[in-house]
Amino acid sequence: MTYPQQEKILTGDRATGLLHLGHFVGSLSQRVSLQEVYQQTILVADMQGLTDNGNTPEKVSDNILNVVADYLAVGIDPDKTTICLQSALPALAELTQFYSNLVTVSRLERNPTVKAEIASKQFGRSLPAGFLCYPISQAADITAFNATLIPVGDDQLPMLEQTNEIVRKVNSIAKRKILTECKPLLTSVPRLPSTDGKSKMSKSMGNAITLGATPKAITAAVKAMYTDPNHLRIEDPGQVKGNVVFTYLDALHPDSDYINQLKERYRQGGLGDGTTKKILEECLQDLLAPIRKKREAFLDNKGELAAILRKGTLLAREESNDVLQRVKQAFGLNLLDI
Amino acid sequence: MTYPQQEKILTGDRATGLLHLGHFVGSLSQRVSLQEVYQQTILVADMQGLTDNGNTPEKVSDNILNVVADYLAVGIDPDKTTICLQSALPALAELTQFYSNLVTVSRLERNPTVKAEIASKQFGRSLPAGFLCYPISQAADITAFNATLIPVGDDQLPMLEQTNEIVRKVNSIAKRKILTECKPLLTSVPRLPSTDGKSKMSKSMGNAITLGATPKAITAAVKAMYTDPNHLRIEDPGQVKGNVVFTYLDALHPDSDYINQLKERYRQGGLGDGTTKKILEECLQDLLAPIRKKREAFLDNKGELAAILRKGTLLAREESNDVLQRVKQAFGLNLLDI
Repeated sequence: MTYPQQEKILTGDRATGLLHLGHFVGSLSQRVSLQEVYQQTILVADMQGLTDNGNTPEKVSDNILNVVADYLAVGIDPDKTTICLQSALPALAELTQFYSNLVTVSRLERNPTVKAEIASKQFGRSLPAGFLCYPISQAADITAFNATLIPVGDDQLPMLEQTNEIVRKVNSIAKRKILTECKPLLTSVPRLPSTDGKSKMSKSMGNAITLGATPKAITAAVKAMYTDPNHLRIEDPGQVKGNVVFTYLDALHPDSDYINQLKERYRQGGLGDGTTKKILEECLQDLLAPIRKKREAFLDNKGELAAILRKGTLLAREESNDVLQRVKQAFGLNLLDI
Repeated sequence: MTYPQQEKILTGDRATGLLHLGHFVGSLSQRVSLQEVYQQTILVADMQGLTDNGNTPEKVSDNILNVVADYLAVGIDPDKTTICLQSALPALAELTQFYSNLVTVSRLERNPTVKAEIASKQFGRSLPAGFLCYPISQAADITAFNATLIPVGDDQLPMLEQTNEIVRKVNSIAKRKILTECKPLLTSVPRLPSTDGKSKMSKSMGNAITLGATPKAITAAVKAMYTDPNHLRIEDPGQVKGNVVFTYLDALHPDSDYINQLKERYRQGGLGDGTTKKILEECLQDLLAPIRKKREAFLDNKGELAAILRKGTLLAREESNDVLQRVKQAFGLNLLDI
């Protein structure tokens, strides 16, 4: 499926941790391609990161420049993509407040994505109001940049539905189309599993390979990687499905013919996990070495990193303020014009 | 009880309708006195007005300048009091978003004031998220102006508790005192009843006398006013308690000795409702004539009214932005300094 070039893309990441190979495969590489075709804005979502880290804000603030360094290191080009910081865009908070009057509490509670996340985070009775309301804040992000195409996984579709409901309500109040509905850009890439093959990839679980991982850390992660627990001797036939080493090779190795041959040999027996892991390790070292090098260079000059983020944020501020003015006008609240 | 002069007052009104005698007795006259002693900020709370008028924003936008005219007409002096517009103060929305991560949904649902209001407004399943969250927004208002003394009725005390909880949490995250707790300034004035003596005073119920009421409207309102339904003949003893005419005379007539004599005569019998109503009507006509005149003059020059509101809002913007910067610093999110 192709999209017209005037589509505007919005993506982003909660700045709550270091980006890892899951981000690389699932979104970052796609963004590097998308920036060649579309207007793309990437939001460093520090405010959204706070929705479940209100009492530990350093988990967010410590990671902002790391995330920007990750972006630049993988090839996101600030001259092609607007990289901006959520907390430095007042219009996002203001739009959130306007929209929060158009969404009912029960609608938020019914949102399947939020429901699943609330369950997985085990908030119980301590669900922060900001977390329950984050679909509203996400609608503010999307509309503030006139974004029409949002790269998401299936699980995020309810968030876009919520956004489009708000768009329709605002347009109906304004009695004309001042906001644009968005469409999902569904990624065909499967989610990269954690190195232990069990849970969701996360730095804190020690089951993710970050983009800045040292050569030693890569080696250790691959060594500990989950394969086929019944593949005890090299000569035994092995299972490829669910074998994390092969999933990573499929997603990251440049030569898919070669990987298909390997899989065939592994299934028949005679290919050991030591060998497949060595192939993956080399692949990852080759992939991550230049990224790590660039990443470190950027982080050695945090002033420049901040300047890049500031430049993008100022640009984003203009666009988001324009949208806010349109919404304020729709609500008749542009009286003072300040 | 006296308060030190450095106390800062914050009050305000939801701009959802014309101000009436209830506001005059319950808060406006007090504010005219307070401005002589304290730093006072009055917020025209248009954003809060939207929390239950999201689909009818004109109910709010149409009333902003009316409310400002009401303030000026009763004697609130923009050189002594900062009059500002909530929707034109981005820091309020931003603070609301920060604080919403520190308050749980169940804490909001337990708030007695919100609970009572939700029940009275009969939202049912259509409770807007913004309405549930308005105590957070109110905490943003109070803290944004470093307000220490908040004129409230008993029923609003839970809102101040909620604010102080947020203040303590933010200070604990900041590891120093960046926000100040507030105290209630409880008013001794009893709430003025509606003219029908039954329900809450409101313009839409037709049971309130607005500050801009015409002489004819005042006459009609007093004529229809609830007295003692068992006081059928002039010579019968009448009941003063619950008699709206006497409640208004108590609250608004300058000569309390005279009113006490009237009450005595009314209780004994021999004083008709026609006479008491005539006395009240004269009192109200005298009170409201100069207010109405000033009000109309202000509304004849809406450009100047807007200029007064703009000036106060720009001043309020500086103060609220300063507080926001302190909070952003506490959360470590002042990286870009823009």
